[in-house]
Amino acid sequence: MSEVSGQRARVVIVGAGFGGFEAVRALSKADVEITLVDRTNHHLFQPLLYQVATAGMSAPAISAPIRHALRREMQRGNLTILQAEVIGFDVAARRVLLDAGQALDYDHLIVAAGATHSYFGHTDWAAHAPGLKTLADAFAIRARVIGAFEQAERCTDAAQREPWMTFVVIGAGPTGVEMAGTMAEIAHHTLPQEFRRIDSTQARIVLLEGSARVLGSFVPALSQRALEQLERLGVDVRTGCKVTGIDAAGVTYETPGSVGAEAGINGAMQRHHLPSRCVIWAAGVEASALGQALAVQTGATLDRAGRIIVQADLSLPGHTEIAVIGDLAAATSAPKNPGADAPTAVPGVSPAAKQMGRTAAANLLRLLRGEPTLAFRYIDYGNLATVGRKAAVVDLSVPGFGPLRFSGYFAWLFWLFAHIYFLIGFRNRLVVMLDWAWAYWTYERSARVVAQPATALRPASPPA
Amino acid sequence: MSEVSGQRARVVIVGAGFGGFEAVRALSKADVEITLVDRTNHHLFQPLLYQVATAGMSAPAISAPIRHALRREMQRGNLTILQAEVIGFDVAARRVLLDAGQALDYDHLIVAAGATHSYFGHTDWAAHAPGLKTLADAFAIRARVIGAFEQAERCTDAAQREPWMTFVVIGAGPTGVEMAGTMAEIAHHTLPQEFRRIDSTQARIVLLEGSARVLGSFVPALSQRALEQLERLGVDVRTGCKVTGIDAAGVTYETPGSVGAEAGINGAMQRHHLPSRCVIWAAGVEASALGQALAVQTGATLDRAGRIIVQADLSLPGHTEIAVIGDLAAATSAPKNPGADAPTAVPGVSPAAKQMGRTAAANLLRLLRGEPTLAFRYIDYGNLATVGRKAAVVDLSVPGFGPLRFSGYFAWLFWLFAHIYFLIGFRNRLVVMLDWAWAYWTYERSARVVAQPATALRPASPPA
Repeated sequence: MSEVSGQRARVVIVGAGFGGFEAVRALSKADVEITLVDRTNHHLFQPLLYQVATAGMSAPAISAPIRHALRREMQRGNLTILQAEVIGFDVAARRVLLDAGQALDYDHLIVAAGATHSYFGHTDWAAHAPGLKTLADAFAIRARVIGAFEQAERCTDAAQREPWMTFVVIGAGPTGVEMAGTMAEIAHHTLPQEFRRIDSTQARIVLLEGSARVLGSFVPALSQRALEQLERLGVDVRTGCKVTGIDAAGVTYETPGSVGAEAGINGAMQRHHLPSRCVIWAAGVEASALGQALAVQTGATLDRAGRIIVQADLSLPGHTEIAVIGDLAAATSAPKNPGADAPTAVPGVSPAAKQMGRTAAANLLRLLRGEPTLAFRYIDYGNLATVGRKAAVVDLSVPGFGPLRFSGYFAWLFWLFAHIYFLIGFRNRLVVMLDWAWAYWTYERSARVVAQPATALRPASPPA
Repeated sequence: MSEVSGQRARVVIVGAGFGGFEAVRALSKADVEITLVDRTNHHLFQPLLYQVATAGMSAPAISAPIRHALRREMQRGNLTILQAEVIGFDVAARRVLLDAGQALDYDHLIVAAGATHSYFGHTDWAAHAPGLKTLADAFAIRARVIGAFEQAERCTDAAQREPWMTFVVIGAGPTGVEMAGTMAEIAHHTLPQEFRRIDSTQARIVLLEGSARVLGSFVPALSQRALEQLERLGVDVRTGCKVTGIDAAGVTYETPGSVGAEAGINGAMQRHHLPSRCVIWAAGVEASALGQALAVQTGATLDRAGRIIVQADLSLPGHTEIAVIGDLAAATSAPKNPGADAPTAVPGVSPAAKQMGRTAAANLLRLLRGEPTLAFRYIDYGNLATVGRKAAVVDLSVPGFGPLRFSGYFAWLFWLFAHIYFLIGFRNRLVVMLDWAWAYWTYERSARVVAQPATALRPASPPA
């Protein structure tokens, strides 16, 4: 039963990522009036964004206009798509506030505004170490990486050149590992024949990780395999490094001082400085600021990463009409045996966002029919990460079989086809396959083009 | 004979466009030391830039990293490529001045710095009517065109919506005709199913031209065919329109007042205002400001478009060591019968730039051998322009046969294959063919992705 009698229930969905898309798809067949709002015009296949950042792919290969990707849903006549910035909510009046003074009334609200990178309070680091969440981020990183080799070629002094030839990736989660592995490939295989003064194979790619191992979300054995694959690619992996400073001159970090070394006292930290003109941030994410805006009005609680703690059915306490999904939600998964097991935390990965989108849509329809909502249950199909050409780690959960773990060439092929399969749109898949096949045989990267001229790219000079 | 005895002559080439590229290719086999400087990292196939601006192609499809495109020449060991901004010259000391305080010494200099769009002194128009010369320009135009439809969809008021649905292209040369034709295709074929509140087929595409006909560089019969093709695509073509103002609210232009109309007096101008939030400038080009810098130091003369008037052999008066080529040069072509015919002006098209690059390189080598230089002779193979899908005009000069002129579908196929043929790099050709084949069958445009979020795109509000 619609809450506005005689009228279709108005559903506003904020965010056209994996979660928002699934919610739209599930709801477009129902008798509801949907408005999808996103600040950009495209749906982004974020798992391949590092390929745009490292010049392996063009932006259109991994993104599609939201309108085009949802054109079939549009045909059903109950979907409006708006490119607008959501600046807040008026929960009491059930309104979403947009830029330019506009607002949208809703009966039901699904917020899937996602996450951005977090510098853990060090906002000044952002200028020197771009993170990777949007296409604009990817273009900025591409310009820096390509530009650093260009600047190195311009240097006539070896000491000046060194920081341009040192690339630091901070954070060894999947994105950091992908970035570091791919940058090593570029230095060793793509560029060597193309410079005169520098030897690109002498570039140093340093991967800094705070914890004891790379890919901490995988089992230790696969972390070890990823580490070996990274080192084979020439990446200098340093774990147990706590970054304490980033500026135009490079990165400062601390490691536990070893007994007998100059640190002397057991447990004292030893400080290191790594001169670098190209630092990439892959160390942390925090939820969209819209989480804060929503929490203030609903009394919901945020976790340390700024995510809204949602109820078992993904709604907010006291607000059955609001669901929060995807990276913005701190959600739990209902256990299989509710009596015996405790709910488990849902990871911030795209399959979880999609599943939450479907559950939120289903619960919304249950509410309209006057039925009770269902608790969200996350089905974990496994975890993939690629390290570089022919190297990846795969940790699958096969129902009724248990974990299936493998690494190396076959894992890479598995990763490749899984990603191509999930890319939206036939054309994109074809272009991606073509790009990859070409890159595989030639080591060439098809998108090494930087739109901005040289002077626009130059990072600020390091302190003298 | 090298001018620096016992050393290779140092050749600096400024600009990696069509002219600079041909000069590098011709000189890389000679015993000279070449440095190629460009402000960007890519060689751009400018004839297809409008496709990037209208979301038909991704940037990497029509551009290649300079280093990659010249990798074979790099292998010969006498070529250095620098991404740097040339900020001036010291002709007396034979130095090219770069940003960041660097400089390059030369024995011979080839300047191929090209042209940019000209607003005929109205620099304030640039903010409201972007031109199309670089990849950054193309992205800016793409964001405006795609963004205007998005803004129109957000409007709840028909009067507000109208200016977002009115697209004005100023200048009906090849670029303006291509832009207008393609924008009409987008409105009528690509977008219709994808909006809810607006009907994209109601968008008005207005092409304003100051002279009496479109494609003024073609013969009148082909201009007429292009006009018919544009009108069939739904473009509102208005010739004899003198633009007198462009601001955030739209375009003001004048037409000759007709006798009996309200203008009354014969010859008086009638003023019109066209409200539009998306105006594209394709009306004029002016040479790079480096022409001015060079003219001041050498005493060379600039023409009205800021181009340097070069001698018959493309060198500057009194400076045999400096050649200026491409769109920066006001060059003449030596007649076939030097006694009977006068030299003719060379048009600013890519085949002319390429031919000048080869002549400048050949003359440089003649100077090194102590031989006299040769006058440049432009070989005109003809003129192509596309209007849109399945529509183009072709005016070929077939040696020993005379002009061969045709239009329509066959002309479009000819245009298509000529452009694919001249695109640099095998991969690009393949991607371009794929993009076009796909676009042909589906009307879909593969690159409708705008990296910037909505609020970054919004043009300034029109005056109230």
